[in-house]
Amino acid sequence: MATNASKPADLSRLINPRSIALVGASDRDGSIGERTLTNLLTHSTFEGEIFLINPSKTEIRGRRCWPSIASLPAVPDVAVVVVPASNALGVIEECAARRVRFAVILSSGFSEAGAEGERAQARMKEIAEAGGLRLYGPNCPGLCNVNARLGLTFSPSFPHDLIKGPIGLATQGGGIGRNVMQAMERGIGIGLWASTGNEVDLQVADFIHYMADAPDIKVIITLLEGIKDGAKFAAAVQRAAANGKPVIGLKVGKSEYGRRAAQSHTASLTGSAQVNSAVFKQFGVIEVNDIDELVDTAWLFARAMPPAQEAVGIYCSSGGTSALTADAVGSAGLTLAQFTEETTAVLRKNLPHYAAIGNPVDTTTVVLSDKTVVETTLGAVAGDANLGLVIVPITLDYGETTARMAQNIINVQKRGKTPIVPIWMSDRQGEGYRLLVREGFAPPRSVGKAIAAIARWVEYGRWKRANPAFTQALPAVAPPPGEFTTRSLSESQAKQQLRDAGVALLPNALARSAEEACALADRMGYPIVAKIASQQIVHKSDVGGVQVNLQNAEQVAQAWQRIMTQVTRAQPDAKIDGLLIEKMAPGGGVELMVGVTRDPTFGHVMTFGLGGIYVEILRDVTCRMLPLDKTAAAAMVREMRCFPLLDGARGRPAADVPALENLLVRISDFVTRHADRIEEMDLNPVWVGAVGEGAMPLDAVIIERVPAGASA
Amino acid sequence: MATNASKPADLSRLINPRSIALVGASDRDGSIGERTLTNLLTHSTFEGEIFLINPSKTEIRGRRCWPSIASLPAVPDVAVVVVPASNALGVIEECAARRVRFAVILSSGFSEAGAEGERAQARMKEIAEAGGLRLYGPNCPGLCNVNARLGLTFSPSFPHDLIKGPIGLATQGGGIGRNVMQAMERGIGIGLWASTGNEVDLQVADFIHYMADAPDIKVIITLLEGIKDGAKFAAAVQRAAANGKPVIGLKVGKSEYGRRAAQSHTASLTGSAQVNSAVFKQFGVIEVNDIDELVDTAWLFARAMPPAQEAVGIYCSSGGTSALTADAVGSAGLTLAQFTEETTAVLRKNLPHYAAIGNPVDTTTVVLSDKTVVETTLGAVAGDANLGLVIVPITLDYGETTARMAQNIINVQKRGKTPIVPIWMSDRQGEGYRLLVREGFAPPRSVGKAIAAIARWVEYGRWKRANPAFTQALPAVAPPPGEFTTRSLSESQAKQQLRDAGVALLPNALARSAEEACALADRMGYPIVAKIASQQIVHKSDVGGVQVNLQNAEQVAQAWQRIMTQVTRAQPDAKIDGLLIEKMAPGGGVELMVGVTRDPTFGHVMTFGLGGIYVEILRDVTCRMLPLDKTAAAAMVREMRCFPLLDGARGRPAADVPALENLLVRISDFVTRHADRIEEMDLNPVWVGAVGEGAMPLDAVIIERVPAGASA
Repeated sequence: MATNASKPADLSRLINPRSIALVGASDRDGSIGERTLTNLLTHSTFEGEIFLINPSKTEIRGRRCWPSIASLPAVPDVAVVVVPASNALGVIEECAARRVRFAVILSSGFSEAGAEGERAQARMKEIAEAGGLRLYGPNCPGLCNVNARLGLTFSPSFPHDLIKGPIGLATQGGGIGRNVMQAMERGIGIGLWASTGNEVDLQVADFIHYMADAPDIKVIITLLEGIKDGAKFAAAVQRAAANGKPVIGLKVGKSEYGRRAAQSHTASLTGSAQVNSAVFKQFGVIEVNDIDELVDTAWLFARAMPPAQEAVGIYCSSGGTSALTADAVGSAGLTLAQFTEETTAVLRKNLPHYAAIGNPVDTTTVVLSDKTVVETTLGAVAGDANLGLVIVPITLDYGETTARMAQNIINVQKRGKTPIVPIWMSDRQGEGYRLLVREGFAPPRSVGKAIAAIARWVEYGRWKRANPAFTQALPAVAPPPGEFTTRSLSESQAKQQLRDAGVALLPNALARSAEEACALADRMGYPIVAKIASQQIVHKSDVGGVQVNLQNAEQVAQAWQRIMTQVTRAQPDAKIDGLLIEKMAPGGGVELMVGVTRDPTFGHVMTFGLGGIYVEILRDVTCRMLPLDKTAAAAMVREMRCFPLLDGARGRPAADVPALENLLVRISDFVTRHADRIEEMDLNPVWVGAVGEGAMPLDAVIIERVPAGASA
Repeated sequence: MATNASKPADLSRLINPRSIALVGASDRDGSIGERTLTNLLTHSTFEGEIFLINPSKTEIRGRRCWPSIASLPAVPDVAVVVVPASNALGVIEECAARRVRFAVILSSGFSEAGAEGERAQARMKEIAEAGGLRLYGPNCPGLCNVNARLGLTFSPSFPHDLIKGPIGLATQGGGIGRNVMQAMERGIGIGLWASTGNEVDLQVADFIHYMADAPDIKVIITLLEGIKDGAKFAAAVQRAAANGKPVIGLKVGKSEYGRRAAQSHTASLTGSAQVNSAVFKQFGVIEVNDIDELVDTAWLFARAMPPAQEAVGIYCSSGGTSALTADAVGSAGLTLAQFTEETTAVLRKNLPHYAAIGNPVDTTTVVLSDKTVVETTLGAVAGDANLGLVIVPITLDYGETTARMAQNIINVQKRGKTPIVPIWMSDRQGEGYRLLVREGFAPPRSVGKAIAAIARWVEYGRWKRANPAFTQALPAVAPPPGEFTTRSLSESQAKQQLRDAGVALLPNALARSAEEACALADRMGYPIVAKIASQQIVHKSDVGGVQVNLQNAEQVAQAWQRIMTQVTRAQPDAKIDGLLIEKMAPGGGVELMVGVTRDPTFGHVMTFGLGGIYVEILRDVTCRMLPLDKTAAAAMVREMRCFPLLDGARGRPAADVPALENLLVRISDFVTRHADRIEEMDLNPVWVGAVGEGAMPLDAVIIERVPAGASA
């Protein structure tokens, strides 16, 4: 998590090495050494030098064997290590000694296999770091550079990895990564797959960073089980965004099963899955929920980037399917295009009078008998300037007629740039399906999956247009080293710090006696709120420590008595500083909340949303990694489902949204400036009034980090 | 929509006829008459009499041809009509004259083809009704009785409809129905498919009713574009529920595109898609969102009914996939089982020490090399009494080893009853896939789709257990005949009607002068709310017609002046009855809303949910077809996302939920009793206090139907 490790490695000689050593090369059939060798010699088209290393052989398949890395006549760019875990450390030592740049460790038996493996892995890391050697793996299937036809992998599936393409794939797990690779069966082209296994050194983020710069990669898929270095990940996806390459991400392991219970109130609302999704959103990473959605979405980007014209067309020959597809388009928030007059004229002229020539088009079954009608009418739709994409749901496989439909789609697509997305809805996959796959359409397999991909594509286009010069400040996630404890500031201290940071607050002051309380209240003006002031009491209402709506000095004096009596009874040991006397918030307004927690991966994260009793019930909250700029603050406010409450819905006065945005940015600046010490903040409620009335935290909890040993 | 038509037809002689006439039989290759004949003679195993009718032939394929229905020597049970639309009316006349029971009209060119076709279809209906002939179609592909191997259809796909099974399929559209039939490719067995086309007479609901009683059908799939007769549909799905047969439904055409804008406030919140979903839920119909989900879900029911043991197991050999699947299980609200000690012991003994032996089980890649480990360990998991279903996501197609995994699953399934659901996640579909399909596993194609099906299966089990003796009163949806207009009652009239119906209300009375207002208020006690009383003013606040929190007679008198001045200025033509003087609701409590509209398909529908400013923003509403019993009212209240607000969340007092449920039932009874005249009701807000304080509408709008010509 150190800032230094966050720098991306230069991986060009790993992905396109000039020479390779295979440590553990073997000719024993089916062994990992033999399978890796076969992939290298038979299924790769590598033109550089390959050194085989096996101390017990002089020759394998007519090629010389060397006894060790140490004995090699030249230093390879990459050492691929397939020896058992017990021998791997020695190999890594030799690699480091010879200044080999990269070691790809395919062997397993490390941190995934218990404490001993964990120790071996840690030792391996030390050796490599000392020698300037970068490690890939261990416990991984290797690296497949499909575009260059180079497999540093033992996988018996590598011979099938034949479809070159503009997608880069970065995963940790080998199994789920391989699942994505098998989408090649649908015609999906994946140029490079890195599967980083235990990530002793190189991480998924390093490969995202590489792919962000690689000229043969246009779209990046990442499938993550955990993010080791949040700052490095953020830097990598920022790079991809800056270079105009969409990143499509699936994070697994989000469920409650197996996860420790969330510790603080705000964390229990957001949890790490929410933080992860928030960071994805912040950096324009397109999040999906299932593996097949990764390829459906990525392939659409590979075929075309989303245009400014967001509206879509539906062209179909089943009335039921066209209604189903229109439903899906509607519920995904997409827009059906209004066809131009020219398109409408072509449709009217060529389709039967009972066909639907609006959008969706329902040709009816005329397409089964009329062999030219599809190219004419689909051609008109696909050429319509009022739309950016055409969906062609294919309900059935009717053999020959469906194959003709497929060929028509192929022909129309060749004449224009607007992407046509055929959906193959049937479980029967005949000649029409094969034609579409062969021509690179990779048809999604259900209406829902297709529309989900299209919606994400359109959404990303919107994000790109809204963020033409995308930059997002990266977090400084590394917390200061050393043991620490935490302590909660008193409300009065917390509010003082916020006031110093330029946050607007209601007038408040600490009264140490009933007389002082009355004097302060008289000065502030009524109504007044009085709250117990004690560092030991966080939940003030629970101990009878709050009195609201006090109208005059007499009521303030009574409140002093009542609060002191109740609090002393409820919590006799608490050290009491007095009463915090505060002007009461004006009537009206909306209660919101702002929380800040320190996420172990991404550093400080802000949660913002509806406050009061609704916060837990409605969970209408949104979150962001800090720091936050004005644009991000504005987006957060508008993401709330309840935003219409602030926007003057139902005749309510419009709320002071600019003041609210300003508040969020100031809180972010405050936390960033004091990132070392602030562990957690809870401003609940935050009151926002009508335009001009401002936005103010009414209560404030700040929990700060204290070096171990310092007194609380 | 008449109540008479709601009676289900006896379809046994349509689905299993003793004799059939084919009107329009032909030997012209590819013609509809030839294709239908081929399906009947070549691809069916029908043992009854088949009469071929073609006036221009004496013989086709060596079989005698008759010139007409009139000329037949016997009356067939079913006439299949494939002649052009222009000749169909004559045929129908003959059928009616001969007292043929059923005519299956495959011809198109009727209501789907414009005004002339519409007229022909209406005429056909008249002829049939007069002659006691039931009509199926027109404009449909026909009827496929797969279990009896009888195809009354022109579809060239009928020869492929070979997988018999316990699923009944009832659709309107032919294309989308055929899509479901093509799921046979995955091993799904569908015993009967009715595709009712234009539904001039027989509707999808008639076939659901038939399937509910048919011994060879266990699970019913329905795919609807529109429901013609809501009462008939409700009766059919009620019958299925009573007979323990799950109905899985997909309603298409739910989108806003092409739908008329909703007319009244409540209707704009619910719309017909919501009403449809509400009715589905009310009758236990399992609603899905995409066509492939129909078969995934239905097939699970066909394999096994959901047991009381809801927890599931996950058995996998990829760590990433097992986390992905656990995520999906978690977000679907399913539970992962805790294995018994016996299961755990078997897993510990047989799997490597680094395998995950909790739930999910991650075997690791040991399954690639150890040929017996899967049967032993999966066998233990599948036999575990702590779970009701085992999910086996298969990440990859690795050829031979995956085929072995498939065979292991098949073997384990043969030894026990707990259903094992393999998920085929890869786009490569090799031998393992074919084995699973052949053995009837019909593997879902993604984790998400599989879990969605399982969640619906579990949910249905819960519903069945909660409704062991399911009965749901059917609505009387037929509105009284005749032209009508509507009028809005005054608040005072509306409240009087509610009070007469036993609904609790705050004290209120109409004051016709300022003096009377003060006297009424003095009698009720303060604080008081005063509202303008006029049948012409519905939105009272908008014209300054409401004053709240009046503390004494003086304020009431002032309120009279203020309201009268403001209202007269805003709406000088309104006829003013006076002021409605009402006791103000106590502090605290929650504001809800109850609305009633008349749905054209399902009759009166109640919408209930959060009221006040939140109603439109949060749309936390639920709805039900009326009448409503206590159980349904309780379910509605608990379906609100905001239910915790009523349940004493966050230290709030628990609300008077029994009073609220009682209110909903009384409103339902009131509307049902006055079903003829009530068009719409809007009770917003409905105030619910703490336990014992009751639940009361604070405002009430009733819009009633008035025969045209009656004075408003």
